Amino acid sequence: MAKDRPTIADVASRAGVSKGAVSFALNGRPGLAQATVDRILAAADELGWRPSNRARSLSVSKAFALGLVITRDPAVLSSDPFFPAFIAGVESVLATRGQALVLQVARPGEDEAAGYRRLAQDGRVDGVFLSDLRHDDPRIDLLSELGLPAVTLNRPEGDSPFPAVCLDDRPGTVAVVEHLLELGHRRIAHVAGPQAFVHATARSDAFVATLAAAGLEPVAIEVSDFTAAGGIEATRRLLALPERPTAIVYANDRMAIAGLGAAQQAGLTVPDDLSIAGFDDSELAEFVHPGLTTVRADPYAFGEAAALTLNQLIDGAGTDDTVADVELPPARLVVRRSTARLEES
Amino acid sequence: MAKDRPTIADVASRAGVSKGAVSFALNGRPGLAQATVDRILAAADELGWRPSNRARSLSVSKAFALGLVITRDPAVLSSDPFFPAFIAGVESVLATRGQALVLQVARPGEDEAAGYRRLAQDGRVDGVFLSDLRHDDPRIDLLSELGLPAVTLNRPEGDSPFPAVCLDDRPGTVAVVEHLLELGHRRIAHVAGPQAFVHATARSDAFVATLAAAGLEPVAIEVSDFTAAGGIEATRRLLALPERPTAIVYANDRMAIAGLGAAQQAGLTVPDDLSIAGFDDSELAEFVHPGLTTVRADPYAFGEAAALTLNQLIDGAGTDDTVADVELPPARLVVRRSTARLEES
Repeated sequence: MAKDRPTIADVASRAGVSKGAVSFALNGRPGLAQATVDRILAAADELGWRPSNRARSLSVSKAFALGLVITRDPAVLSSDPFFPAFIAGVESVLATRGQALVLQVARPGEDEAAGYRRLAQDGRVDGVFLSDLRHDDPRIDLLSELGLPAVTLNRPEGDSPFPAVCLDDRPGTVAVVEHLLELGHRRIAHVAGPQAFVHATARSDAFVATLAAAGLEPVAIEVSDFTAAGGIEATRRLLALPERPTAIVYANDRMAIAGLGAAQQAGLTVPDDLSIAGFDDSELAEFVHPGLTTVRADPYAFGEAAALTLNQLIDGAGTDDTVADVELPPARLVVRRSTARLEES
Repeated sequence: MAKDRPTIADVASRAGVSKGAVSFALNGRPGLAQATVDRILAAADELGWRPSNRARSLSVSKAFALGLVITRDPAVLSSDPFFPAFIAGVESVLATRGQALVLQVARPGEDEAAGYRRLAQDGRVDGVFLSDLRHDDPRIDLLSELGLPAVTLNRPEGDSPFPAVCLDDRPGTVAVVEHLLELGHRRIAHVAGPQAFVHATARSDAFVATLAAAGLEPVAIEVSDFTAAGGIEATRRLLALPERPTAIVYANDRMAIAGLGAAQQAGLTVPDDLSIAGFDDSELAEFVHPGLTTVRADPYAFGEAAALTLNQLIDGAGTDDTVADVELPPARLVVRRSTARLEES
């Protein structure tokens, strides 16, 4: 251990007591003679002793860390642009406060609840980010029961005692469908994300509702899994339809870019034969050929806002009602070359 | 707190003593009458009390977490493909052991040493990954002094008490230069990463040595910063040289892809007028137009191997000598369309 700050052992030695007695005195616990307590506090004061975060954790229940449990395959961290950018935004706030982010990946199908319980019971974190909200998400009740402060990314269905930081996916999805309608497309298909996620169904619902408002039905909706492999498979099924779509709207860029490759491999020219749109505006979107029309969210700003809000909640010692929800600017359409006017054939 | 396991308060209540006394007894500290200790231990036993990770942390010095301090702008997490993939590899190991990753971003220029000290002194982590090794890296001595187990990513210069997990960048860089030489290029430039990093100079040194072996000098070496903006600027300077290079080797894909755009904006055709090669084989590399010739490392495998090695070290209770260094398969050349034979003009 470094010697640049006095330890409990130093205080004990100066006061002529055991380390246990020092710990008792500094934590204000009963059981020592007042004269002993006074001698210990004087020694600590003279040495300039101050509690480490860990000792403070024990006395004031602060871990100086926030937690993020991700219930997906660990590979999502390298394959999906959302989490790295979200984490970068979180870290930009934490770095200024000397806080750490405790990251735990629970493999899907394994017990994520145990992960949250561990974080709470071990006092490892002062609060958690609740991402990838699911329908009837059991984590809202779990975290309430654990008494662990939390911020949800977007609003869960039903009641929630936690502040929500929201970035509305729907206006961007509506805009992408309206853009395709304006270009003359009528046979439009959708490749959706896993329907257990609220954000995936928010995009699907916006897709269907926008077509319905124009008096149209989707050609098909393929439910996929946000991966490149899933995007390729869904695209192949759509292109094999008797009346294939003239445009496909994907729920993320990763599936859209894979779908672009699948369409090109099938001998189609994008956008002449098929218009393709994604969702995320990941770095890749600008560089693929043709550049991908997509919807831009801002996961870095999402992370920043979530970290600020969670810290507000923690600093306010858990008075949930005083922390307001945050509404970030909604996702918006970015038009590139992968979508084009439907030529009458 | 959940009620599914007895707490120290439950034990205290059953034994008829204070919580502080229970904590003292369970941690084997002196100061209580033996009869009291016996009563407390019996109560704990009857209730089936077992220490939480946090209590165990205090008694056996295990935090059940590993630490990674990244001393770069937080945005590196979303802009550089290395860290997300490395972290995903680490998490794939930690997820199976219920461990967490404590991630701390120290802004460059601020005190990263304080970050490591805090991790060690607060007992937040059982060990750390040492990435982005620098020349004369002060962190080797710091971590030795802190007594914090560590694994270095590649070998530091000078002595190190820590096992190293190594992925040699050099064979890939040598191969990229030899590939360009075989294509007839003689005027080859290099855009390097920050020379404080050992990995950046390893690539630069391999670049210079391979040219030297062919009796050539680099046209120019631009030292940049691994960012897209830096790549564009360096490329513009190289293209403005009186005798501009016919090929540019970049120290990462991000600078190479930005350089590709800068060259195309300047009216050059890649690869006809200029060959371009990167380093990383990031997902982007395959999708840009033309596809980027680059060098493939495997940061996911790097993360897995580093986590396994650090856990070996921790499980062995710090006997550093018993944990062997790991040599991963070296980075290797991936040839795509951005490099081509030099046409005599």
